[in-house]
Order: sequence, then C-alpha cells, then structure tokens
Amino acid sequence: MAVVTAGLDEQPPSGGVVAVIEVLSGRLGNRFTTSAPVREQHGNTLTWLPNQPPDAVAFPLSTQEVVDIVTLCAQYRVPVIPFGAGTSLEGHLNAPLGGISLDFSKMDAILAVNTEDLDCTVEAGVTRKRLNEHLRDTGLFFPVDPGADATIGGMAATRASGTNAVRYGTMREAVVNVTAVLADGSVVKTGRRARKSSAGYDLTHLLVGSEGTLGVITDLTLRLHGIPETILSAVCPFETIEGACNATITAIQFGLGLARIELLDALQIKASNDHSDLSLEEKPTLFLEFHGTPAAAREQVEAFAGIAAENGGGKFEWAERAEDRNRLWEARHDAYWAARAFRPGADVIATDVCVPISRLAECVEETHDDIREMGLVAPVVGHVGDGNFHVLPLIDMDNEVEVAAAGKFLERLVERALAMDGTCTGEHGVGSGKMHYLRAEHGTGVDVMAAIKRTLDPQNILNPGKIIDLG
Amino acid sequence: MAVVTAGLDEQPPSGGVVAVIEVLSGRLGNRFTTSAPVREQHGNTLTWLPNQPPDAVAFPLSTQEVVDIVTLCAQYRVPVIPFGAGTSLEGHLNAPLGGISLDFSKMDAILAVNTEDLDCTVEAGVTRKRLNEHLRDTGLFFPVDPGADATIGGMAATRASGTNAVRYGTMREAVVNVTAVLADGSVVKTGRRARKSSAGYDLTHLLVGSEGTLGVITDLTLRLHGIPETILSAVCPFETIEGACNATITAIQFGLGLARIELLDALQIKASNDHSDLSLEEKPTLFLEFHGTPAAAREQVEAFAGIAAENGGGKFEWAERAEDRNRLWEARHDAYWAARAFRPGADVIATDVCVPISRLAECVEETHDDIREMGLVAPVVGHVGDGNFHVLPLIDMDNEVEVAAAGKFLERLVERALAMDGTCTGEHGVGSGKMHYLRAEHGTGVDVMAAIKRTLDPQNILNPGKIIDLG
Repeated sequence: MAVVTAGLDEQPPSGGVVAVIEVLSGRLGNRFTTSAPVREQHGNTLTWLPNQPPDAVAFPLSTQEVVDIVTLCAQYRVPVIPFGAGTSLEGHLNAPLGGISLDFSKMDAILAVNTEDLDCTVEAGVTRKRLNEHLRDTGLFFPVDPGADATIGGMAATRASGTNAVRYGTMREAVVNVTAVLADGSVVKTGRRARKSSAGYDLTHLLVGSEGTLGVITDLTLRLHGIPETILSAVCPFETIEGACNATITAIQFGLGLARIELLDALQIKASNDHSDLSLEEKPTLFLEFHGTPAAAREQVEAFAGIAAENGGGKFEWAERAEDRNRLWEARHDAYWAARAFRPGADVIATDVCVPISRLAECVEETHDDIREMGLVAPVVGHVGDGNFHVLPLIDMDNEVEVAAAGKFLERLVERALAMDGTCTGEHGVGSGKMHYLRAEHGTGVDVMAAIKRTLDPQNILNPGKIIDLG
Repeated sequence: MAVVTAGLDEQPPSGGVVAVIEVLSGRLGNRFTTSAPVREQHGNTLTWLPNQPPDAVAFPLSTQEVVDIVTLCAQYRVPVIPFGAGTSLEGHLNAPLGGISLDFSKMDAILAVNTEDLDCTVEAGVTRKRLNEHLRDTGLFFPVDPGADATIGGMAATRASGTNAVRYGTMREAVVNVTAVLADGSVVKTGRRARKSSAGYDLTHLLVGSEGTLGVITDLTLRLHGIPETILSAVCPFETIEGACNATITAIQFGLGLARIELLDALQIKASNDHSDLSLEEKPTLFLEFHGTPAAAREQVEAFAGIAAENGGGKFEWAERAEDRNRLWEARHDAYWAARAFRPGADVIATDVCVPISRLAECVEETHDDIREMGLVAPVVGHVGDGNFHVLPLIDMDNEVEVAAAGKFLERLVERALAMDGTCTGEHGVGSGKMHYLRAEHGTGVDVMAAIKRTLDPQNILNPGKIIDLG
C-alpha cells in the first residue's frame, strides 16, 4: 500500500496538543506514546486515502479514563479519535486535524454473558473472534462477521455487517445498548437489557454508525444467537448474474432462512482458482449456508436446489461436515487474498454499495460494463441477500491514469447505486472517503445530522472530518 | 371510561391559534374543524389520563399540505399533534398546550409494493389491517401486530410491536425509512430502500419512537415477510409462571423460531373462560404459533411439546386448520375484552413493562404479590418471548382509594422492571403518562434527548408535553 504520511512531520502540534500530551504522558505512563511508527499505524492504513496520523496514542483501561481524556481534550479543543482494530476502510481513523487516538486494545474484558437472555456485555476493544471463542461452550454465538477480526466497538461505530446479515442482521440489530462518553465528558448508557423498549428516543441507534463523531463507545450489550444444530454449506454456479440474483430473490421470498448467500463473479472465481488451485467453473457463483434443525436445514437445501435449477443454476454441491464445508467455501473465504494476488504489486481498493435486491443484477451488470469501459481489473463479491456488493479494483497506485480511472469508477458506482434507491455504503461506512456523497444520498437529512453533531459536540473534537462536513 | 375534558372550554385559544384556525379553515374547508366532539375524540381516549383536546383538527391530503400546516403553526408557535387511529395508551394525543391535531385518515394511500424487495411504501394513515388485506395476493405480509388496528404512522411513532415481535421484530426492525416534516417545515427522507446502510447517522431510528416530538411522519417504507407456508398454533397450561417462562427461554435458546409465544396468567384465563364460555384449566397458559415449511413447523411443535413437558407443562394441544387455530387461540384473541367484562363498570388501565427474559418469572410473580397486597383485580398478559408483559388493572374510577392504589401499583411495577434492568415501557411508549420515569431509566441520556429535541424543535411545537419534560 502506498502510504502517504501527509502532515506527519510538517505540521507541528498546536499548543493545546502539547499541553494534553504533557498531562497524559504523566498520567498514563507507558500507556501513552507519541512514537511516529505507532502514530502512523493508528492513522488508517486499510485504505487508499493518505495516512494522517494522530499526535499521540493513548491506551485507556476504563470508561472513567476515557472520560478523563475526553474532558482534558475538550478543555484544549484537541480531537479524539477512537481506534479499534484498525480495519476500517474509509479513512475513519485518520487525524486530519491531529489529536489523540484512543486505542481500545486494553479495554477487552467480556463483562457478562447472560445465556438465558441471549445477550452479553463487552468492553469496546473485544474482537469478534475472541468473543466467539469465549462463547463457544455456552452454545451461543455472536453472528456479525465482517471478515476482518474487528473490535465490537469499531463494528458498532461503523454499523458493520458481513456475510450472515441476511439472517441475523447487522450491528444495527445486534447492539442492545452502548455506554458512550460524550464530548463534554458525560457518560450515557443508551438503554437497558430488555429486548425491546418504547421509552424515549433511540440513542442506541444514534450512536451505532456514528463513527465516533457523537460519542466514544466504551462498552456494549449485544444480542446473541443459539449455535444452530445443523449447518449445511452449498455452492452453485450460474450462467448469468441475473440468474444468481433471481434465485436469491426467490429464496428470500420463500422465507428459506438462508444464513449466508454470497455471490462471486466470474473474474473473482478465476482469481480464486489461480490463488487456491481450485477448478471451479469460471461463472457467477453463489456460496450458501443454511442453519437449522437437521430436517429444516435439509429441507432448505433441497428447496434452494430446485430454485437454482429454475434460474439457470449448474451443478449444485452441498456438504455438512465442517471440513467439507470449508472446502466448498474456500474460494469465498479467501476471496480478498485471491483478489490481491491476482495482480501482484497492485493495491486493492475495497468499496461497497447496497441497492434494493430487485436492482442488484442490473447494478452489478452495469458495473461490469463500467469496469470494462474503464479498462480496470475489478472482481465483484456480493452479500446478495442484502443487495450489498463489493468491488475490488486492483490498482497500480503509481499509474496516475489508472488511479484517476479508479476514482471516476468509484464515483459512478455510487451514482448508480443512488439512482437505484440504494446507498453509497452498505457496511463500510462514510469515514472521510465517502463524505461528499452524503448530500446526494440524504438531502436535507444531512442538515439534521449536522445539527445533531453541532449540538452534541459543539467544539467538533470527536473524530472531526468524518461523516459530516461542518464546512 | 371516565373522560375528563380539562381545558376544553375553560382556556380560550391563544391569539396565535385564532390566526392559524382562520387561515386553515379557509384553506382546508371541510377538512378542518373546531367542533367540540371531534376535538374531544382527538384527545387521547384509550387511557385513564384526562382528555385534553386540541383547538382544531385538520385532515391533510399530502406531505406538502403537512409542510404548509407545520410552517404556519411554527410562525404562530402553535402546537401540532399527529393523530393516527387514536389507539395509543399513554396520552400521546392529548393537547396540554392546545394546538392543531393532524388526523392522517385521508393520507391512506399504499404508494408502492415491491414484492421482489419484500418492502412497501405507504402513507402514514394506512392501517395495518388494510395493508395486510392489500398484500394478501402478493404472498407477503406485514407482521407487526399490536392488537389494535393502528395506523402505520402511529405504530412507527410509538415504536409499537405486539404478539409476533419475538420472530419478526418491532417497528424498530420493520421501518426501512420514513418521510417526515420537521418543525421548521423542512422535509426529511431518512434513508433509501436498500436493506442496510452505513451512510451517516440513523435518522430512521431517531424518528421511530419519537412520538411526533421530532417530526411528523407522512410516509414510510416497511419491510415485509413471506406468508409462511404452514402456520401451527398450540396451547399449553403450566403449573407455575416460572415453568412457562423457563419453557420459553429454552425454546428461544434452541432457536425454535417461535412466531408468537404469549402468556395468560390464571386470572386472565378465568376471565376468558367466563367471557367466551371456555373450559381452560385456570393456570398460567402459553399460547404459541409456529411458522415455517410443513416439516419445519411440525418439528418445532414437537420440540416445544418436549420442552413444555420438562417444565411442568400440562396437556399440549396444537392445530393447523385456521378454524382450529382460532378456537385454540380464542382466549388470547379476546383477552382484552374478557378482562374488561370481568369487572363490569370498571375501567381497564392497560400498562406494560419489559425485562430481560431471565427476570420475567420473578417480575411477574412479584407483580402478582403486589396485586394481591394492593387488593387489585389485575390480569396479566405477556409477550413472554420478549420479556414484555401487560398488566390490566380493572379499576373503579369513582373509588378514590382504588385509583390511588392503582397509581401506586403502576409506580412500583415500573420501579420493579427498572431494578431488573428492564424498561418502563416495552411497546406502549412514553406519551405524557410515563415521562416522569424517563430519568430513572435513562439518566444522562434524557439530557441528550432534550438537547436533540431543543435543536430540532426549538419552539417546542411538535407534540409538546410528551416524552421529554423541557421544564
């Protein structure tokens, strides 16, 4: 990745930052650093946006410590940028105005698991894989799976989702409540552990997806699910993207309860064949997973096999044993790495849009036309049950013409999704990378967002330069 | 119902209201009225709170007309109170400061049904029953069922739910986006039709449950579901509330996918036996519904029968044919009317709380103790899969001692729910009736809610005196 470290050395920290650094380094000791490599690592690296590191990185241990840091930063008008695992994709972690990165890696306690209530409470720095390891013996699991081993706090902040949102929902559905530190240092707990409530404004959902711009999430209560008795996996190639999408729509209308339904386009299959020495037919291919009782899961597989056949589906393979399921899904699991390897030396620009599922085939096909027209190499991987897909342009970042073409392609991708009543991002978030699309998507809603931001963070110290352009 | 018409005649309308009435009666003709019976009908009648009628009632035809009315009311600082079907329970529709009730009964168009996307867009005045009649031929249905034939706009505004939220979620999950008129007359559409989005603050969820205090919802896009191939209903009495709750918890942990699981306590069963000439055992009883393919639904019923037996369940009856299902569920369907009839002349004070399901048995049992101690007659009906239950005190409103006891009982019910990490209302909303509990439930969150309210409605003209006490 071509890391541009704009502002790392050129802009000296403001007087306020110097004061904050002095106080925090005295207070936090070795849980505070201004070392350049650590700062650079805490600017956003999984993106093609320039790396804009913070002035310092703090590693808080508790909500109270976050309160103290935010209060201090508010006093000196110094930005605070919450940091989870650093896997976000739209520049969420950059510090365009400098400031203190709050790294949550030391706030990783699993505070409670309430098996009877199917929920748990965790600190923001717990990663989803560690949570699921912890839960394994309880028969429960946390379903949201964005691929990367992100932190729960980061996933909530970006309203993440992933492969099995079609059945279990996204972080929007998974978060029961959060504890957050606001810009004035006050602590808000957004709700109780009851599964539903009509008691007042929904502050939980206001904070989920707010990307650290309204509050710093320090702990969360999450909804869990029972590990299904039976998991079956399947793979089926289709003649056309349209056939694959129509099969998906039909299955969802039938209420088949698919747990995952993923599309890889022919180019991605080719990349996967190359990368993993597979011999899949190089056609648009659906990767599916069914959860249920033994009978229900088998019934779903059989029903889907019939639906696939009616929509131009080819050889339908399915498996139950974990090792067979992993083999069937290998191309999907390794899709990102296969795409990377497909064009050595190129960067992967991972982007996503989401459209109503009825428009998905059309949207992917027009995107394919555009990829061809722009002369790009760009596999497509989609969470088709949600109408959400990723395009992974493989870009030589030293080739200015190609970089410009990629930029234009991304603009047109978003315009296309918006024209189909879709969104500029289904799961990656806005960060700084997609701020300029927000007006086209939300119109006057952006003014409401800005009014809320100004009210809750009048000094604009919470992750400034993200989501809302305050002008 | 003892209707107290406080303020109906005593307080003459303010000068601003006179001006607004003059303009609107000229503009809207017979879609505008100041008639006392119509005004009184538009104050909240399904509650024991005093009826506080608006100064006039307008029947808008379009979002633009709502914009015009809100803009005019803003100019004269006159309150605007949105009105759906008038079935809310906590004084949501009262006009403590006077103002204009906006009756949405003429905005009842079903604007679009997108069968492939499993969504539809409707004007706010469409009722849920009419929507489901309209959808019937499409094979889809709208699941949220609060009992009353409420409007979709009102259900969204109060974050309603009901019997099958355990499977299909509440209005929180059902609403994809809303169009709303804000206090300054601007129109916001809170999202696109994509099933998920990470693009900015979640204004949809901010408006859902805001009870008309942040914006007037004029249309909504809703998530629909496929009508299940098979519906099975079942009934099972239990020796104890605890047994019924434990069976519920186990079934949910197993991921049985129950569509409805309702508890009627022994007193409610007695009321139902009297009312409908039934001969159910007068014990805590679960009423269940299973949705799925034929095999999956049967598998669920069998699994639940086993779980019930292990938890002290008695005779387990189930049925598939619609008429048999209706017979089995008759006591549940008519619970409200049976409760009313159980004590002729008394009023039913319908209230609700919601707790984590692990605390439900304890909460209901302590509530039973309190009912006995206070000498009240109060059946309990619960959406136990969600930990949500209703108590229906049957109160002689002319007996001051009894009214005072009921008031004390309601306070203690909420305190009990909050102490168990629950909420003061699972689905009825705050209105004016539960405003004074909000601080105990949300702490500093109430300040955040008030800040948002002040920002978006600085003149406090949108349904004032509800949810937030602005002091």
